[in-house]
Amino acid sequence: MAKVQPRTLSGFMELLPSRQIQFDRMAAILRDSFSLYGFFPLDTPLIEASDVLLAKGGGETEKQIYRFMKGDSDLALRFDLTVPLAKYVALHYAELAFPFRRFQIGKVYRGERAQRGRFREFYQADIDIIGDGKLDVSNDAEIPAIIYRTFTALGLRRFQIRVNNRKILNGFYAMHDLTRQSTAIMRTVDKLEKIGEKSVRDLLTAPEIGLTEQQAGEILRFIDIKGSNEEVLASLEQYRGRNPMFDEGLDELTMVARHLAAFGVPQDHFALDLTIARGLDYYTGTVYETTMLDHPEIGSICSGGRFDNLAEYYTDRQLPGVGISIGLTRLFFVLEDQGYLNDQLNTAPADALILPMTEDMGPAISLATALRTAGVRTQIYGEPKKFKQKMTYADKLAVPYVIILGEDEVRDNAASVKNMRTGEQVKLTMDQVAAHIQKGLAPLNEGTPILDKGE
Amino acid sequence: MAKVQPRTLSGFMELLPSRQIQFDRMAAILRDSFSLYGFFPLDTPLIEASDVLLAKGGGETEKQIYRFMKGDSDLALRFDLTVPLAKYVALHYAELAFPFRRFQIGKVYRGERAQRGRFREFYQADIDIIGDGKLDVSNDAEIPAIIYRTFTALGLRRFQIRVNNRKILNGFYAMHDLTRQSTAIMRTVDKLEKIGEKSVRDLLTAPEIGLTEQQAGEILRFIDIKGSNEEVLASLEQYRGRNPMFDEGLDELTMVARHLAAFGVPQDHFALDLTIARGLDYYTGTVYETTMLDHPEIGSICSGGRFDNLAEYYTDRQLPGVGISIGLTRLFFVLEDQGYLNDQLNTAPADALILPMTEDMGPAISLATALRTAGVRTQIYGEPKKFKQKMTYADKLAVPYVIILGEDEVRDNAASVKNMRTGEQVKLTMDQVAAHIQKGLAPLNEGTPILDKGE
Repeated sequence: MAKVQPRTLSGFMELLPSRQIQFDRMAAILRDSFSLYGFFPLDTPLIEASDVLLAKGGGETEKQIYRFMKGDSDLALRFDLTVPLAKYVALHYAELAFPFRRFQIGKVYRGERAQRGRFREFYQADIDIIGDGKLDVSNDAEIPAIIYRTFTALGLRRFQIRVNNRKILNGFYAMHDLTRQSTAIMRTVDKLEKIGEKSVRDLLTAPEIGLTEQQAGEILRFIDIKGSNEEVLASLEQYRGRNPMFDEGLDELTMVARHLAAFGVPQDHFALDLTIARGLDYYTGTVYETTMLDHPEIGSICSGGRFDNLAEYYTDRQLPGVGISIGLTRLFFVLEDQGYLNDQLNTAPADALILPMTEDMGPAISLATALRTAGVRTQIYGEPKKFKQKMTYADKLAVPYVIILGEDEVRDNAASVKNMRTGEQVKLTMDQVAAHIQKGLAPLNEGTPILDKGE
Repeated sequence: MAKVQPRTLSGFMELLPSRQIQFDRMAAILRDSFSLYGFFPLDTPLIEASDVLLAKGGGETEKQIYRFMKGDSDLALRFDLTVPLAKYVALHYAELAFPFRRFQIGKVYRGERAQRGRFREFYQADIDIIGDGKLDVSNDAEIPAIIYRTFTALGLRRFQIRVNNRKILNGFYAMHDLTRQSTAIMRTVDKLEKIGEKSVRDLLTAPEIGLTEQQAGEILRFIDIKGSNEEVLASLEQYRGRNPMFDEGLDELTMVARHLAAFGVPQDHFALDLTIARGLDYYTGTVYETTMLDHPEIGSICSGGRFDNLAEYYTDRQLPGVGISIGLTRLFFVLEDQGYLNDQLNTAPADALILPMTEDMGPAISLATALRTAGVRTQIYGEPKKFKQKMTYADKLAVPYVIILGEDEVRDNAASVKNMRTGEQVKLTMDQVAAHIQKGLAPLNEGTPILDKGE
C-alpha cells in the first residue's frame, strides 16, 4: 500500500511522552495555583463565528487568524482567550456573579511565520477578574501574589514582577501637554530595554512624534525613576497635585505596593517600573510584566493589566477587569531550551512495573490490582519476552520500581522489588509491597518541574 | 457603537462555571484512573495536514471534517484521537518503548447535523496500548478493569461491560460458509437491540445479504447464547474444533473472562455478549461496549476493541493494539439530562470567601495568604458594597464558608467563620481558621461527580 508520510505541522508543539508529563505537571500546578485564589475554571469552544471573534477587527489579528467556511458558516479559531471571555461574559451575564473570576488554560491559534520558538498552536493560561460596572483596585493588588505563588510553585526563583500604572503615564503626559502623542510615546518608551536610551530619544524627537529635546528629556528622566518601591513612590509623590489622572494612578500603584507583604510577595521579586507600558491600547491602569532575571532576552513570561471595558463590542454594560496571561507553550519551550526542566523528577508513566515470569498471570494481576487500589501507578508487562528485554523496557520508561514475580516468589506468596535508581532489591510479602514503594516514591515526586539553578 | 451579537455556535458545549467544575472533576478522575494503569498522557495538535488525517479516506469522515486552506496548506481538524495516535506512533516510533500505553483527553471535531445531544466539538477520552509486531492478549483482559475502575470512581454503579471477540464471529461465519457476507451480517446483528430479532431476520434474508432462513436461524441462535460467563463459554466450547479462527477467538475470550476477578471486576458488571460486533471493520479481536443498565437507550458509553494494524497508512510496521474511547462531552450531556450529576458536591470556586468590613484590607489579605498557604481556596471580596450584597455574592457562588472581618474581629485578631450550609457561625483566632474550614470541607469534597441512585 502507498504510504502517507506521517508528519506534524511546523509551528505545532508535539512532545515525547516524558516531556508531556513535565508539561502536564506544569499545567496542573497552574490550575492548582489559580484555584487557590478562587478562580472558576472555564472552557470555551476553539471555534467561534468569525464576526464574533473579529468584532474588534483590524490589525495583525485578522491576518494571522485561521478562518474558513463550513457550509454557510464563516468560522475562525480563537487567537487568544480574552475575546472568548468577553463573549462568554456578555452572553452569560445574567447567570454570573460579579466580580467574576475565571482562569482558562487552552490552545489558541495564530498563523505566524514559522520560526524557532514561535508557535502557531500554543497554550495560553489566563486569569481575569471581571467587575460589573466597577472593580476595586484591591484586585490589582492581588495579581502579583498570584504570579509569585504560581512561578514559585513551578520552581522558578530568579524572576521579578514589574508593575506600573498607565494612569501615571497618561497623567504625566497630560502635565506636559503631550496627551495627543501619549500612545506613540508609550509604544516607543516600551522599547527602552531593547533599543536603548539613545534610540528612544531619537525616535521621540523624530518628526513622527515630534517632541522637543526638553520634552524627551523630561520623559526619559521620568521613566528613569528607580530605586526601592518606597523610593519610587516618593519620587512620584513630587509630581502629585498637577493632574488628577496622575494622582489616581499614583494612589492605585501605592495601594498595589502597600499590601505586597501581606500578600506574601517578597520585595526582591517585585519592582515598580515606570518603563512598563504594555504596547496595547487595551490597558488603562495597572500593568504587569514578569521577567526571568537571568534571561531578560526572553522578554515577559507573564503579562497583563487593568482594562476598563472587556466586552464593549458585544454589550453596553461596563465590564472593567484585571488579568494576566502566561504563554505556556512558549514558556515550556524556553525552559527546555535553557536547561530549566527538572529531569530528576519522576516522569515514568508508572511507579511500578510488574514482570510476571510464570505462565499464569494471576498473581501479577492480583498484585497490580492491590497496588492500584493503594494508589500506586502500576503496569504489568504481559509480553512473552526474555527477562533482559523486559528490563530494557523498564529502563526505557524509567520506572522507579520493577517487581519480579518468578516461580520462587509465587510459591512464597512474595515479590522481589527492585529500586531501579539504587539497584537495591528486596523480597517482600505481597502486602508489604505498596507501602515499600510509596515510601521510596515520596522523594521522587517532591521536586518542582523547574529547577532554577540561579542563586 | 454597533454591537456584535455574542453567541456560541450550535453543537458546541459551553458550560456555566459550576457545571464546568463538575466536568473538570470528571476529566480529572479519568486522568487519575488511566494513570493508575501506567498510561502516558499525550497531547497532539488539533490541526493536521489533510492528507495525513485523511490517509484512510472515504466515507462519512470526509464529509464531516472541518477542512480549510491556510496559505498553501491544506489543513483539517482532527475528527478522532485514533488517527493522530497512528501518526504519532509512526512518526516517533524510534523514540517510543513498546507496548506503548497512552491516554489522551482532547477535543475532536465533526460537522454533524446539529441536534440535541449531538456535538460538533466534543471531548474524547481514549486509551490505547500499542504493540510492536505483537501484543499479548493479557492487555485485552486488563481493559475491563480500567473501564470498571474509571466509571466506579466517577460514581456510576449500574453499568455493564459487554465483551465479545470478532474472531469468534468471523470463525462462526466461516464454519457456515458465510465469510463473504460476514461484514454485512455483523452490521445487521449489531442492530439487534435497536430493531429487534424479527427485523434483523428480515434484513439477513433480504436480497442484499441473501441468507437462507436456516442460515439466519443459525446466526440468531448463536448470538442468542446467554447466561453467566461460564455458561456462555461452555456453549461456545461446543463449536470448538471446526474453525481455527473461532478457536483462537474462544481462547482469547476465555483468557479475558478468566482474570476478571483478579483484576477486581465484579461478575455482575461484566457480560460476554455475542451480539456485540462494533460496526467497524477496524476491530479484529476483542470488542467492548459499556451500557448504563437503567438507560440502554443511550447506547454504549465506552467502546473499543482490538485492532491488528494501527498505522498501516503511514508505515509498514505491524502495530497491533487494543483501546477504548469515552465520548466525554456526550456522556456529560446525558448525565446532566438524566439527573445523574451530584449537585451536592462542592462546586464553588473557593472554599472560603473573606468579607473585609473595615477600611484597611490588611488583615483580610494576611488571613487569605495564610489560608492559601494551608491549601484552602480563598477569595477576598474587595468591592465596597453593603454586607447584604456581599452575602448575596457568597450565596451565588455557593461558597461553603464566609469569613467576616469586622472591627471587633480585627481588634481581637480574630475571624467570624460562618458555615453557609448549616448557618453555624463561630469566632476563631486567626490561626484556628484553616483547620476549622478544612475539617468542614472534607465531607463536601468526598462525593463522586455522578450520583447513581439505581440500586
